[in-house]
Amino acid sequence: MTPEASVQFDANGRLRHFLTTEGIGRDTLIEILDVAGSFISVGERRIKKVPLLHGKTVVNLFFEPSTRTRTTFEIAAKRLSADVINMNATRLSTTKGESVLDTVKTLEAMHTDMFVVRDKASGTAHLIAEHAPRNVSIINAGDGRHAHPTQAMLDMFTIRQRKGAFEPLAVAITGDILHSRVARSQIHALRQLGVSDLRLIGPATLLPTEIEKLGVRTFFNMDEGVEGADVLIMLRLQTERMDGQLLPGPEEYFRYYGLTERRLKRARPDAIVMHPGPMNRGLEIASSVADGPQSVILAQVTNGIAVRMAIMAKLLGEAGREGQQ
Amino acid sequence: MTPEASVQFDANGRLRHFLTTEGIGRDTLIEILDVAGSFISVGERRIKKVPLLHGKTVVNLFFEPSTRTRTTFEIAAKRLSADVINMNATRLSTTKGESVLDTVKTLEAMHTDMFVVRDKASGTAHLIAEHAPRNVSIINAGDGRHAHPTQAMLDMFTIRQRKGAFEPLAVAITGDILHSRVARSQIHALRQLGVSDLRLIGPATLLPTEIEKLGVRTFFNMDEGVEGADVLIMLRLQTERMDGQLLPGPEEYFRYYGLTERRLKRARPDAIVMHPGPMNRGLEIASSVADGPQSVILAQVTNGIAVRMAIMAKLLGEAGREGQQ
Amino acid sequence: MTPEASVQFDANGRLRHFLTTEGIGRDTLIEILDVAGSFISVGERRIKKVPLLHGKTVVNLFFEPSTRTRTTFEIAAKRLSADVINMNATRLSTTKGESVLDTVKTLEAMHTDMFVVRDKASGTAHLIAEHAPRNVSIINAGDGRHAHPTQAMLDMFTIRQRKGAFEPLAVAITGDILHSRVARSQIHALRQLGVSDLRLIGPATLLPTEIEKLGVRTFFNMDEGVEGADVLIMLRLQTERMDGQLLPGPEEYFRYYGLTERRLKRARPDAIVMHPGPMNRGLEIASSVADGPQSVILAQVTNGIAVRMAIMAKLLGEAGREGQQ
Repeated sequence: MTPEASVQFDANGRLRHFLTTEGIGRDTLIEILDVAGSFISVGERRIKKVPLLHGKTVVNLFFEPSTRTRTTFEIAAKRLSADVINMNATRLSTTKGESVLDTVKTLEAMHTDMFVVRDKASGTAHLIAEHAPRNVSIINAGDGRHAHPTQAMLDMFTIRQRKGAFEPLAVAITGDILHSRVARSQIHALRQLGVSDLRLIGPATLLPTEIEKLGVRTFFNMDEGVEGADVLIMLRLQTERMDGQLLPGPEEYFRYYGLTERRLKRARPDAIVMHPGPMNRGLEIASSVADGPQSVILAQVTNGIAVRMAIMAKLLGEAGREGQQ
Repeated sequence: MTPEASVQFDANGRLRHFLTTEGIGRDTLIEILDVAGSFISVGERRIKKVPLLHGKTVVNLFFEPSTRTRTTFEIAAKRLSADVINMNATRLSTTKGESVLDTVKTLEAMHTDMFVVRDKASGTAHLIAEHAPRNVSIINAGDGRHAHPTQAMLDMFTIRQRKGAFEPLAVAITGDILHSRVARSQIHALRQLGVSDLRLIGPATLLPTEIEKLGVRTFFNMDEGVEGADVLIMLRLQTERMDGQLLPGPEEYFRYYGLTERRLKRARPDAIVMHPGPMNRGLEIASSVADGPQSVILAQVTNGIAVRMAIMAKLLGEAGREGQQ
Repeated sequence: MTPEASVQFDANGRLRHFLTTEGIGRDTLIEILDVAGSFISVGERRIKKVPLLHGKTVVNLFFEPSTRTRTTFEIAAKRLSADVINMNATRLSTTKGESVLDTVKTLEAMHTDMFVVRDKASGTAHLIAEHAPRNVSIINAGDGRHAHPTQAMLDMFTIRQRKGAFEPLAVAITGDILHSRVARSQIHALRQLGVSDLRLIGPATLLPTEIEKLGVRTFFNMDEGVEGADVLIMLRLQTERMDGQLLPGPEEYFRYYGLTERRLKRARPDAIVMHPGPMNRGLEIASSVADGPQSVILAQVTNGIAVRMAIMAKLLGEAGREGQQ
């Protein structure tokens, strides 16, 4: 297990932080999905709140702004009745030259219970977790190119919700695998959950070398890669990379790696289409597919609240079962 | 009824969204004012909260920043015990190129209950309302030059609070009628509530052509326009328009269209002075009038909280009466 | 008593605002410290909330951004169960040209109960307090070079927590005394609480002239100043002043006025080291001292929440004792 994967657990093997899907056993992943299942109904009630985290303070510590992701964690924490503090951490650290660890230690001294950390740099959440006192939990809300484990978990939840068992599935991830923290976290979780046929699709420049070691197959040709798949996961293309040498122009990218209705027909008739959002319509995915009957993209968002509630509740040591009250 | 006015109602004629005062019947307007009346006392209590929206999530979706308006809705929602999410939507949509509708659909998928929408562009709240699922309500908090219906409603509340019946009143609105979403919403509401003598005052360049069709009288000469009026509504002058051809300089504007003590004397002795704020003192209104005994400008702000609580409670289908508990 | 010190009290001598430590009697200061003591345990509970300010609205009105200070007040208010509104007031006032007082009167008209005010300009909190209606309380969260009284109170709390009685202590404050609102507030409080030996250390350019009138001793030589002290308070150096004539370069400053382990040995063996944060490590304080066994810097942060809760509870007229429930 990597140091980062192991720092997630306390001396008794209990999950304290959620930094990466790597190194988290199948049973724990399944338990999180089960607890999330019990929270799905909360969002459909008249009163969308459970008192699990009443009196706890959750800090959204975003060194990289992301309104959408911050909002999902804010809603999840408030549905658990926690107090939420949003921190635009960039300003704090840059205008006064304070180090990330001094910032976090200061916040911990205020008896905050949980940090949801987002940063452009890989490893920030891990760094903070290594120095966290016993009662403080860290959730990685995306760090550089490294990991985005709550996104991966909501994807797992959505796949199980629609497909049942993981083992027999063929799952194809398409796009900029090389730079995607989402893909990295998905691959670990899908492997752990026993997906037998995992495929990565993209231009050679965007596929990590030696990725096959992780037990996956790679495809440069998308038509071949989606053939007979049960689950098609499209990644968001970081269009700012378009300038460089790694990527062709948008039209060419869409022609080779965009998910069109024609290409979708090559997958199984009951295949589902996933995307972490926000989408570049007409770049990595056609609008007709994004809004079509096989798309579960908005279900992913809905599930994301329940999954984040489950992870928060689990880390703060409350029996997830209480959510079923 | 315009398409926008009709999208506000569900199949049973119940008000679902609050986008424009246009097309809302007298009875419904009066009902909102009555419910607001029951909320006035909440702001004066030791514990300024009622549990009507407990467990609901209200999103302040501001594509155009407005700290003051955002704050009124945030306070109103919190006094109703809702959870409030503030979104700086500009950043979201521009830095990641996501469309407004994708943003909103994503937020709806999180089971949010209400959006308070503000935008520089006319029609944004309407666009969102057209695509909203059954359980989601939209409030227009100002869209371009088009409408600002909650501001108009708090003005109606304030007029009724001070003057009783609408029918016998002479109401004069002064300023940049042409570009004012506030004026547009006020005119519809005042007409619907039966104000018999409605006057618009401003330079010819700032009065819409053919506005008399709405049953109002126009005045280029302010002294004539305020003569014998019961209610004087001053509009905020968008000083950024001063550069153009439409407006004279500030001194000249104040000389012709500023509300001074001398001009106020031409109105009825018990006339009230209103302004939506923030004021340009010495431009559209003299400080002595703004702070004088006939000014109800701060009462408008106080009433604004109760009126916004009433609209939120009504849209989310709770009996407004519960506010009287 | 200065006008500012006296505006803090109502006609019955009750504390209404907290603007400066100047003019607040020993008994009131001690009472605040006692109430804060009763709140310390709240931060250590499973449910970190007391219902004292339930239904009250606290506005963080920050004309100067300070994420750290804003967060401490936000956490304190939420632990008291208040609703908190964060206002980026710079934008409000500059983009629409509204005056500070119009902004505040508008917010007061929304029946808000308390303003936590921060500004670059000295006197802003005082100005607002002078015009506040009877039921609204103002807390000064730092105004220019003038005062930062809640910081001073948490420092007093920390000193008493570690040292007991104030009278016998030797307290040394080192740094840019001239420009420090923190130092100014500390000096008033330490004098009022009876500290017999108060020393100010810094280069001649950063020590106010005639400061000895306040009953303190000044030292240009830090080694002499810290000799036998019980409490060492380091001030944050505003590095933006480094450009000017007042200060030497960073290395030179650290050599003459940085708190090193060697210098710390000159103080009493049980001396405590304090800093308001955020620290410039290696500039005014060595990292080994900041993180060393005599440092109480993180305890200051923890105490800061309890002290701010105590001040908020006292101003809003609730018996602080209820915090002990």
